[in-house]
Amino acid sequence: MGEISCSNGISQANGADAKNVALTGYRKSCWYEEEIEENLRWSFALNSILHTGETRYQDIALLDTKPFGKALVIDGKLQSAEVDEFIYHESLVHPALLHHPNPKTIFIMGGGEGSTAREILRHKTVEKVVMCDIDEEVVEFCKSYLVVNKEAFSDPRLELVINDARAELESRKESYDVIIGDLADPIEGGPCYKLYTKSFYEFVVKPRLNPEGIFVTQAGPAGIFSHTEVFSCIYNTLRQVFKYVVPYSAHIPSFADTWGWIMVSIYNPHSHSILSLSYFENLDSSRPNSFTSPINH
Amino acid sequence: MGEISCSNGISQANGADAKNVALTGYRKSCWYEEEIEENLRWSFALNSILHTGETRYQDIALLDTKPFGKALVIDGKLQSAEVDEFIYHESLVHPALLHHPNPKTIFIMGGGEGSTAREILRHKTVEKVVMCDIDEEVVEFCKSYLVVNKEAFSDPRLELVINDARAELESRKESYDVIIGDLADPIEGGPCYKLYTKSFYEFVVKPRLNPEGIFVTQAGPAGIFSHTEVFSCIYNTLRQVFKYVVPYSAHIPSFADTWGWIMVSIYNPHSHSILSLSYFENLDSSRPNSFTSPINH
Amino acid sequence: MGEISCSNGISQANGADAKNVALTGYRKSCWYEEEIEENLRWSFALNSILHTGETRYQDIALLDTKPFGKALVIDGKLQSAEVDEFIYHESLVHPALLHHPNPKTIFIMGGGEGSTAREILRHKTVEKVVMCDIDEEVVEFCKSYLVVNKEAFSDPRLELVINDARAELESRKESYDVIIGDLADPIEGGPCYKLYTKSFYEFVVKPRLNPEGIFVTQAGPAGIFSHTEVFSCIYNTLRQVFKYVVPYSAHIPSFADTWGWIMVSIYNPHSHSILSLSYFENLDSSRPNSFTSPINH
Amino acid sequence: MGEISCSNGISQANGADAKNVALTGYRKSCWYEEEIEENLRWSFALNSILHTGETRYQDIALLDTKPFGKALVIDGKLQSAEVDEFIYHESLVHPALLHHPNPKTIFIMGGGEGSTAREILRHKTVEKVVMCDIDEEVVEFCKSYLVVNKEAFSDPRLELVINDARAELESRKESYDVIIGDLADPIEGGPCYKLYTKSFYEFVVKPRLNPEGIFVTQAGPAGIFSHTEVFSCIYNTLRQVFKYVVPYSAHIPSFADTWGWIMVSIYNPHSHSILSLSYFENLDSSRPNSFTSPINH
Repeated sequence: MGEISCSNGISQANGADAKNVALTGYRKSCWYEEEIEENLRWSFALNSILHTGETRYQDIALLDTKPFGKALVIDGKLQSAEVDEFIYHESLVHPALLHHPNPKTIFIMGGGEGSTAREILRHKTVEKVVMCDIDEEVVEFCKSYLVVNKEAFSDPRLELVINDARAELESRKESYDVIIGDLADPIEGGPCYKLYTKSFYEFVVKPRLNPEGIFVTQAGPAGIFSHTEVFSCIYNTLRQVFKYVVPYSAHIPSFADTWGWIMVSIYNPHSHSILSLSYFENLDSSRPNSFTSPINH
Repeated sequence: MGEISCSNGISQANGADAKNVALTGYRKSCWYEEEIEENLRWSFALNSILHTGETRYQDIALLDTKPFGKALVIDGKLQSAEVDEFIYHESLVHPALLHHPNPKTIFIMGGGEGSTAREILRHKTVEKVVMCDIDEEVVEFCKSYLVVNKEAFSDPRLELVINDARAELESRKESYDVIIGDLADPIEGGPCYKLYTKSFYEFVVKPRLNPEGIFVTQAGPAGIFSHTEVFSCIYNTLRQVFKYVVPYSAHIPSFADTWGWIMVSIYNPHSHSILSLSYFENLDSSRPNSFTSPINH
Repeated sequence: MGEISCSNGISQANGADAKNVALTGYRKSCWYEEEIEENLRWSFALNSILHTGETRYQDIALLDTKPFGKALVIDGKLQSAEVDEFIYHESLVHPALLHHPNPKTIFIMGGGEGSTAREILRHKTVEKVVMCDIDEEVVEFCKSYLVVNKEAFSDPRLELVINDARAELESRKESYDVIIGDLADPIEGGPCYKLYTKSFYEFVVKPRLNPEGIFVTQAGPAGIFSHTEVFSCIYNTLRQVFKYVVPYSAHIPSFADTWGWIMVSIYNPHSHSILSLSYFENLDSSRPNSFTSPINH
Repeated sequence: MGEISCSNGISQANGADAKNVALTGYRKSCWYEEEIEENLRWSFALNSILHTGETRYQDIALLDTKPFGKALVIDGKLQSAEVDEFIYHESLVHPALLHHPNPKTIFIMGGGEGSTAREILRHKTVEKVVMCDIDEEVVEFCKSYLVVNKEAFSDPRLELVINDARAELESRKESYDVIIGDLADPIEGGPCYKLYTKSFYEFVVKPRLNPEGIFVTQAGPAGIFSHTEVFSCIYNTLRQVFKYVVPYSAHIPSFADTWGWIMVSIYNPHSHSILSLSYFENLDSSRPNSFTSPINH
């Protein structure tokens, strides 16, 4: 050694540094980054970018992330991640379907990803699921790429409709045991705003529910601070239309927030109690692939 | 216009771009960034870096962040943030103090930030609080910079001791109504590992609890995935030493995770029930500055 | 050890990871980030944010960065960094002043930071420097915070004027040996666009130059790709107004680009040659605090 | 509108913000990030991750970046980017080949990417090119993925050898008109350190040069600050072995730095002059696909 003529000895030090950077730094050089709020960023190391594209309505990407597995991103917002999408979709589907005494017919507003249908179709009582999403290309994309939903997409009980959910519900004469809102948050001027209004609930949703019917909707972030964005609004709106209104929430790691859902009905489906979170938890513990209990692992 | 000789017209387009970047981009150019896990980053826009320093044991910084207010960072990990530290500290302190029939003497292992003492001192029954932290400089730093804890630091009921918590507890003859573990997570080889062991709980903590005494410890991340890191371990360890063991958790936005605490006792302090989360929530709703209910805002 | 009851052994591994992250990660958790182009980011680790503020015209910040020392940031764009601002300011000032046979009177358009004046005032022949900047608050800010320019700001040869540079030049009757453009890039609709036009050069700058006068302007990025943004445009515009036009460039590390300047005159100031880069380099090597030669270090 | 019951009006504001973020933010959510130095980061927006893999010696990735096109990354360091690799490879190859009166035989140490061979093979005088790289998998990778070098890899004049460059040169009896070092920087303990030593130049390279032979090596960062890392060392080492030593440099945008090369020979190949940068620039301007002149665009 010492055969390289450095008057300053700097290259040694740099050498060590450079090796260090190489050893610790190089496996995490590609990142997906999302601005959760204007001043708050959430970044996942990437294995690969599986697909990117543009539909008539939205930008869409399927990423393979290190911390959360495959992630579906629409218009730059994470929609669902492989390792924890079950939290969102189980929370959206099972409380309503388990509370209904005999859920046979289900209408999904949105849900093009297919995961909501997948969870619904696990219920043996279900005879018919209408999934009504406006964006055909997203649906086709998810059909092709989301292996976990393949079976659901080809289940004969599933009827897939490409249409605006309001128009579709208004045009249909039949009513449903459970209607599920699996839509983007109500942002003024956004595409889904009108699917969260009092008049929509009163004049479109309610008339399409069977007597013992239940309506449940995703309701946006429900964290200790973030619930004021849309969760409380949706709750207050639904209280003006339905007698029984049950908000509930769960922490979704890939969303970096607690998420909320609200389930409503006209008639109290069970005399014995208002739904409680603990009730909901008990239900799930008896099913496979469900929430993992945080204790005794 | 048009007086600048561009053969290519590029500067117009660039001009527009540049303005755009200027208008939308420039307010969020300074960021605090934390690697929550190796492949997961969490970044807060910064207003300012209020203080940085090094103690004998740790690196310490006080940042003014846009999303979470003032943030205390030790060794590159966020310790507590102004807007939501109350979740951690109320959860650590109040369940134990409200369950004890008459909490007079309290021992805090760690807690140098002062917020745990602040919450304890809000209880009128409390006559004496021993706060035992190993890092005098962190304590001095927090005394000087954390205005919200000023009053607590000068409360005559507070006795501040700079020592290793184990050594201090062993050397003391008196016992306490409530002992609180406000320590870093048990990482093998880390400074706090020995304060989470079975022998420590059995031979140091338990003997220092009064007959109706309660011990409560922070217990690390308790999310649906992250609870396996240390939360379950601490729970399982405590179950071998104490008869009544109650784990509980809450989502802390600035930590991007759900956090856990575990409260234990030898004698069931109330005949009527095992502590439940709902019980805990009811308690807090009657106090000022407590958890905000997520509904009706 | 082994006294913590983990059924899975996970905490050990995590412990090692966590320590590792702590050891390697925590010193670089605060960053200044600039979007150099829409898809290109440049980030400096931060020691501190020394000052942030807003003037009537612009947002301003003084940061202490690890790689480049103190950095002045206006509207989210780095203006100058302590360790390499000399490259910009020496390149802007010295070629013109060294080529002029006897530079006595100098007019700076912009230059509120004070560094251009500082370099000019190092020339003993200089009797008067007019610095005309539109933003009084930026000037005051730099006076207070940029220690390196303190002496320049209090030099009796400096006359500081707060005004639009065009209006000021038009209103003045005297002419100058050297006029220096130390302005933001010409972005259509931006504040400085009109100070780069053919009519401005023809009818405002040229008439204010003494017979042997030299005009020099910063001319934006001059990299192998980036020179098409404004550098070529400014060059082509100046060629329509002045007979001798010399573009030159230098790499400025903190800008992550090569930067350009253009020097012009009506009469060839020296019979012997057109300016060459090598000439310019020779000049500087005889002066203190100048460019460092890249060889033999 | 107004049909959603928000007591606080927050959702409107949030709605606007959210749309804004969506509109401006979502196209640049995937990034490649490199730590150029410990406190300095350089990030490119990504279109896709074309390939990642591991060879026996190195980690390798091919990324499609927005600002610089396809980028080859080895061990987390950018090796070459589609839009500006020509600067590196033309600078490495053409000065030496154009100065040699009749370059027929060329030996490349390293160069597995194929771009150095590509530039060499553009010279009609060249009859034989030996490319000696140690990492067969990188060579195979580049053969498959770098379309721009396809022709070069299949040129019958190219002899590809998988071996350590020192061992290969020592074992060969023939000598060469031009030897080219296209290797990683000399980092103590790194794989290429021994290929930059005085004894290597004296006893391995020099004896393998034909009488009018030229040796040229890439020489690391050569910026105003970064040249002290290895560039000056290599220069000083080569000066002890060769009579004519010409360092030169060029700014490479994707490297965020100025890069250096050093060309040496025993006999002055041209009586008329030492090579100068301007000479080098003139040469290139007469060739297709070469450096673009920064003026008159």
